[in-house]
Amino acid sequence: METIAIGIDIGGMLDAVLGLTACLVDAAGGADSVAGIGVGTPGFVDEKGIVTGRAVNLPGWEGTRLGESIARRFGRCATVTNDANAMTLAEARFGAGRGVRNLVCYTLGTGIGGGIVAKGKLYTGSNGMAGEFGHVSIDPEGVKCACGQMGCVERYASARGIVRSARELCAAENVEETPFVRMVRSSGEAATSRQVYDFVNAGDPVARRVNDVVCDRLARAVGITINMLAPDLVVLGGGVMMAGPVIVDSVRNHLPRYTLPELLAGCSVVAAQLGEEAGVIGAGALVFEEVLRFDA
Amino acid sequence: METIAIGIDIGGMLDAVLGLTACLVDAAGGADSVAGIGVGTPGFVDEKGIVTGRAVNLPGWEGTRLGESIARRFGRCATVTNDANAMTLAEARFGAGRGVRNLVCYTLGTGIGGGIVAKGKLYTGSNGMAGEFGHVSIDPEGVKCACGQMGCVERYASARGIVRSARELCAAENVEETPFVRMVRSSGEAATSRQVYDFVNAGDPVARRVNDVVCDRLARAVGITINMLAPDLVVLGGGVMMAGPVIVDSVRNHLPRYTLPELLAGCSVVAAQLGEEAGVIGAGALVFEEVLRFDA
Repeated sequence: METIAIGIDIGGMLDAVLGLTACLVDAAGGADSVAGIGVGTPGFVDEKGIVTGRAVNLPGWEGTRLGESIARRFGRCATVTNDANAMTLAEARFGAGRGVRNLVCYTLGTGIGGGIVAKGKLYTGSNGMAGEFGHVSIDPEGVKCACGQMGCVERYASARGIVRSARELCAAENVEETPFVRMVRSSGEAATSRQVYDFVNAGDPVARRVNDVVCDRLARAVGITINMLAPDLVVLGGGVMMAGPVIVDSVRNHLPRYTLPELLAGCSVVAAQLGEEAGVIGAGALVFEEVLRFDA
Repeated sequence: METIAIGIDIGGMLDAVLGLTACLVDAAGGADSVAGIGVGTPGFVDEKGIVTGRAVNLPGWEGTRLGESIARRFGRCATVTNDANAMTLAEARFGAGRGVRNLVCYTLGTGIGGGIVAKGKLYTGSNGMAGEFGHVSIDPEGVKCACGQMGCVERYASARGIVRSARELCAAENVEETPFVRMVRSSGEAATSRQVYDFVNAGDPVARRVNDVVCDRLARAVGITINMLAPDLVVLGGGVMMAGPVIVDSVRNHLPRYTLPELLAGCSVVAAQLGEEAGVIGAGALVFEEVLRFDA
């Protein structure tokens, strides 16, 4: 969805979404061949299918009557949910969580989002806002978050949080000057989490320490999720997971300190399987779920 | 359940439970008049109706085949869950949460337990272990918990945690010597959370500071629960809540620092309504729910 948004004002963005949907409906053989239209969007979606706050990268998108607009335009039912919920549903139905009854999914991207499947069904909470794992505080004395809270895990383990953690560690006076440290110091704000993980995977000792700090903090939030929800599975997905198995491995290593042993024994932590397609697959799968639905 | 356990060995305890159940079945007019038998028990209950760990006050209770034993003995279906889940169900069906679709319940007693109702149904997670809110860590550098984690909210806001917080504050050299401080210093380990709250309600300034610290820490855990689950309602129950409205009021005051504003706006925090009967009412209600069920 964010790709579509580039350079489009928000009034035009709904039109763009409707236009793209029209192309897809045509490609499927027309509206009569379509069971329904599922949509994942940044932000929350209330019970009227209206986007509410938190679509931070799409200012103005808030208030869009997404469900109703699509249902009316195409004469087909429309289902709408948060994009992280859509990813979670995709992993639950077709990805890492196939056949699993209770699972949670962390989406590690620019920020951190998440979703919950409880008793085999997507659980979205009041006004579609459940699964805000990025804003689980893992340190009440920690870094201030834009949301107003302190120590949100998003500040440490999202793509931006990883870069911040790297810069912090590399700014320390007593750190050895590895190639990674030189890269981070010279790149400044332009460094990316992908660069950090290239060095982690190449074995740079300081980069590995950054990964350790990041995954320790991520494990605190994951541990709290496990203690609260006793899921069978935690799926870690999102762009940051392109780094490969090192993140899942490190989170697993740290988890025993942050979880009740009985709960950890019943819960696996794995990487997502569907990559960047997960959101689209999940949005499509929504149509066949018991969720918020807008009839044409 | 704990009352029954006093002075009874665990082999005898299952017999005692079966004996008491027989009395209740008789009082109801015999097994033919009984739809089923619902049981709430300390500890977790796995999918086979067997009690697994965490029944810390009932050593040896682990491994009891509770569901099967009751179903066989009375020729009626039996449903079994954790006692905090039973309380949560009671509040959801007949108490503070009537008509609410998504809610969580914190039970503040000797320890802290909890339960989750999602989409109107009790959610118990893998092996009945969801809702372990007492073991949400609110400070990774905090007090070590018996469970192995650091900074579990139970260490600060359970009955024992409150007394510990009071003793800590009253041990400080620069604290003014109020009647409360003298009581805590002279009582030592014998002080109770009820005594602490008698002084809080009487307006003792140091006791009020203890309440503030306790509720600040409780609010951190409640805030994390709200951010994860976006419930419509948080119910605070358990023996500690006999203290009256001061706890709910203080938690509400602290919550804005620990919750996303959009989520807090959709969520009320209230006191439980059913008191000590909640567990029994919830256990009875279990029979009519879609939960783990053992047929006779």
